[in-house]
Amino acid sequence: MDRRSFLKTSAFGGTAAAATSLAAPAIAQGAVKLTMVTTWPRGLAGVWDSVERFSNTVATMSDGQLTIEAKAAGELVGALEVFDAVTSGQADMYHGCEYYFVGQHPALAYFTTVPFGMTAPEMITWYYADGGMELHHELGEIFGLKGFIAGNTGAQGGGWFRKPVSSPDDFKGLKFRMPGLGGQALAKLGASVQVLPGGEIYQALSTGALDATEWIGPWSDEKLGLQEVCKYYYPAGFHEPGAALTVTCNLDVFNGLTPAQQKIIEIAAAETHQQNYGLFISNNGPALDRLRGSGVNVETFSDAIWDAYGQASKEVLDGFMDDELFAKIRESAETSMKASSGWNSVSDGTYVTQRNRVMGA
Amino acid sequence: MDRRSFLKTSAFGGTAAAATSLAAPAIAQGAVKLTMVTTWPRGLAGVWDSVERFSNTVATMSDGQLTIEAKAAGELVGALEVFDAVTSGQADMYHGCEYYFVGQHPALAYFTTVPFGMTAPEMITWYYADGGMELHHELGEIFGLKGFIAGNTGAQGGGWFRKPVSSPDDFKGLKFRMPGLGGQALAKLGASVQVLPGGEIYQALSTGALDATEWIGPWSDEKLGLQEVCKYYYPAGFHEPGAALTVTCNLDVFNGLTPAQQKIIEIAAAETHQQNYGLFISNNGPALDRLRGSGVNVETFSDAIWDAYGQASKEVLDGFMDDELFAKIRESAETSMKASSGWNSVSDGTYVTQRNRVMGA
Repeated sequence: MDRRSFLKTSAFGGTAAAATSLAAPAIAQGAVKLTMVTTWPRGLAGVWDSVERFSNTVATMSDGQLTIEAKAAGELVGALEVFDAVTSGQADMYHGCEYYFVGQHPALAYFTTVPFGMTAPEMITWYYADGGMELHHELGEIFGLKGFIAGNTGAQGGGWFRKPVSSPDDFKGLKFRMPGLGGQALAKLGASVQVLPGGEIYQALSTGALDATEWIGPWSDEKLGLQEVCKYYYPAGFHEPGAALTVTCNLDVFNGLTPAQQKIIEIAAAETHQQNYGLFISNNGPALDRLRGSGVNVETFSDAIWDAYGQASKEVLDGFMDDELFAKIRESAETSMKASSGWNSVSDGTYVTQRNRVMGA
Repeated sequence: MDRRSFLKTSAFGGTAAAATSLAAPAIAQGAVKLTMVTTWPRGLAGVWDSVERFSNTVATMSDGQLTIEAKAAGELVGALEVFDAVTSGQADMYHGCEYYFVGQHPALAYFTTVPFGMTAPEMITWYYADGGMELHHELGEIFGLKGFIAGNTGAQGGGWFRKPVSSPDDFKGLKFRMPGLGGQALAKLGASVQVLPGGEIYQALSTGALDATEWIGPWSDEKLGLQEVCKYYYPAGFHEPGAALTVTCNLDVFNGLTPAQQKIIEIAAAETHQQNYGLFISNNGPALDRLRGSGVNVETFSDAIWDAYGQASKEVLDGFMDDELFAKIRESAETSMKASSGWNSVSDGTYVTQRNRVMGA
């Protein structure tokens, strides 16, 4: 996924409406109605599911006393205008990815994903047990926001290639679509990094304007038809190992809610995070099987390519270390990740390897 | 963990109180107060945390209109009496592990864990996206129950040994404490399977009454002091790859709640499942480091031992296949597990292997 997809909202069929000032939150007869702007086209598989699950859960748990009206990108404001819309109070909350707003603060990336960052289980550990949520709130306060992770795509795919790649040299001059910090890392390998909205990827690959692209994962990529124009797919990538989606509220609006309403938002978001992660896993496996069946070659990057990805990613992250809060959040995330990864590798990792070997699962 | 630990409640300092008949649920001034019996001693690390988190979340989200009074094992009924207490309406719900009650129905094991079964992320996928929760409810209806998973220990350790094991032959005559279906599998390897409550394990290992044991994981095992009497620890085991804890309600009580209250219980349970999983991972890594530091040898089972575990586990599960609902639930769980494992291995699995190799994380 990327932020630039949304700069051209036409890619998803939406048009940014003129900003209108709203009284927020709207309170009538004791009930509270919140307006949620989103970075998504209505119905986008997986991510819009999390918007609906969160909204429905909040409404049901509050017995209809706290309801959320979700707006697709372009219905109230454009996708990348949601940050400003919520900080200004024009809307009460947004659903999106914090890393779209790294221009506001680079550490926001940690609450979505960073290159060589956490898997979803590691994110669960950091965010809910190792202080990640508290850091999210500390960072949000700077902007008058209070965010909660509320969805997770799991590990995103490494990308689609018209020709296979075997060494870092193959990236020199490669026209590769990858946004964000991952794209910055790819540029260090000599790739010609492109940023195109989702709706333009298929055509660009067809005409040779692109040599390679990433999007989300098999479930979502199949819907774009990428298997028709690229025959080499690398399911494991370095750039988005577990991308969290977020519900982020205007802090004043959040503080104006009752403790019960605040807790309902917090818990509904967390439950959505978990269910959405399962939903992506559930759909990615069968989609990958279909892709294999349609003639796609499923590949893995060579160690030399992973080494180059690693060096470039480290350089990108190091470039933000003059920001004190970035350094603090990076340190917290990497310390937690190292500990949980160490445990998981000797525990789940060993178990799964043996189970799959013994049982063929 | 095991069910027999709780047969002797003295192991945890509790004494089973005489069963008393309660009006359930207690309703006063519009507020509903539910009585929750549990299979746990008060304060047991990790599992009691999930009891408290669930109860506090429900109370806060309902603005105090739905509250839960949690009883430790022995305070109202003994640990293994909770199933009968809730089916009979003596208590409104229990918090425990469904596999304690495989004597009621063997398929209950699938809602905790089975040998060579699912990791926690695979459980998330099956339970929330592939129909697992619906099967849990279908099974519960037989007993007038409605359960929701509400905690997860992650993968439990393979066990503590006084001497290392290198082949399946080393299990012949080995006095090994392991309860449940895992213990049944071990017996097929020729082990002398023992079932002792947690409070008696340390002493039994000290005197040679036991040669080996499993308990939960580094965080919990360290509290029992097992590192003082065993110097060989195998973090990865076959028997409990991701043990879920459960909140299970009396079905009539649940159906008598409002839709808002029902949803609050469902979502609070799910959120607790996620947070508790992170809590165990967060604590297991540092505990394993401390165990290594105290001179414990951290080992892995040989392929030959894993092969023997696999064959024995399959035989144990196959032994229940004459039960139609067991077969249906096993089929659902294994189909989901196979799909999610396939995706995770080429996605998260490849990524984590490369990240740890490249970044040394």
